Amino acid sequence: MTTRDQSDSNWSAAEEDIMEATYSALLKHGYADLSIARIGDEFERSKASIYHYYDSKDDLLVTLLEFTVDQFESSLNTEASQNPAQDLKQLIDKLLSPHPLEDSHQFQAVLVGFRSQALTNTRIRAQFTQVDEYLATTIQELIDRGIAEDVFHDVNASQVAEYILATINGVMYSRLTTDRGDAIAAAHTSLISYLDSELIAERGGNHPV
Amino acid sequence: MTTRDQSDSNWSAAEEDIMEATYSALLKHGYADLSIARIGDEFERSKASIYHYYDSKDDLLVTLLEFTVDQFESSLNTEASQNPAQDLKQLIDKLLSPHPLEDSHQFQAVLVGFRSQALTNTRIRAQFTQVDEYLATTIQELIDRGIAEDVFHDVNASQVAEYILATINGVMYSRLTTDRGDAIAAAHTSLISYLDSELIAERGGNHPV
Repeated sequence: MTTRDQSDSNWSAAEEDIMEATYSALLKHGYADLSIARIGDEFERSKASIYHYYDSKDDLLVTLLEFTVDQFESSLNTEASQNPAQDLKQLIDKLLSPHPLEDSHQFQAVLVGFRSQALTNTRIRAQFTQVDEYLATTIQELIDRGIAEDVFHDVNASQVAEYILATINGVMYSRLTTDRGDAIAAAHTSLISYLDSELIAERGGNHPV
Repeated sequence: MTTRDQSDSNWSAAEEDIMEATYSALLKHGYADLSIARIGDEFERSKASIYHYYDSKDDLLVTLLEFTVDQFESSLNTEASQNPAQDLKQLIDKLLSPHPLEDSHQFQAVLVGFRSQALTNTRIRAQFTQVDEYLATTIQELIDRGIAEDVFHDVNASQVAEYILATINGVMYSRLTTDRGDAIAAAHTSLISYLDSELIAERGGNHPV
């Protein structure tokens, strides 16, 4: 996790250090065994300064999640091209990249770990509701654009967006929690086939003016 | 979790009691805060007897997972009908039931909680690899049967099965970790539309002899 690249960051240096330390401790120990003491071990300043900023381990973790979600959404933010079909496939490739960089894999692993906490923690649940809302809206806007430009069939954009998102979530989840790499690649291939056969009216090349 | 219905159970009464206690403690406290002491609180016998059967909390949790996976797979086991399309839709409805019974919801919630442990625990990862393998095989066999009986198009059964499974996993996951019920229902509807348009050659009624 590189906070230093975030030029628009609103976090103080101390807060950023705490986020880095929490993230490192999380990767090392996992959720079940995470503690403020262990976060302190990853941290150069005094453990007491953590309590200056955060009331509890729970507060710290929810803040780390907000921080991580911001980074995740920024990483997906790219310039729209002239081709909505290409943009949609690129977004899917980014999310389902078959050979993710270790950093991106760790990133997603942290998100999956957080997500399981959404079962019982309403603040974390609200964050993931927002993440999925963001992804569904992004996909739906691409579909709406494709329909408006006559390169996609006139589908129910919202419903198809939710379908694509569900498949993406299932593939990401299985990649991180099973050893079924070939199976996951097959699901990814099928998703692209689905787009080609059900959504995209005109393949490749430029869209009509 | 009702172990008493399992006539083919190979578990001793004491082991079943420990599984029930572990399950109750898990629902009450979640993974992060689970401890042998808290499992003992749900248990009428002495805490020491837990150690008689299980070396560690980790050992106990993996055994509970095996037990839960057995129950999950048994719950999906139904008699094949004359109609593979109907059987496939029934399987999907069972997995994605829009108003799951509280018990089934808790069941799936326990599975999601376990699954996040698959990131770091190889024994748990192996269990989920097996769960997905089981589900993918079940779906693939239904597709193979539909193709053989000419009621499904001649698709790549293995690839389509992985695609359907990924979507199912994504929907189950989102239902448990977000508050996006309408969106999830939309994804479920899209999955059924996909089956109708891409897989099923002959809808409803009986298949040709």
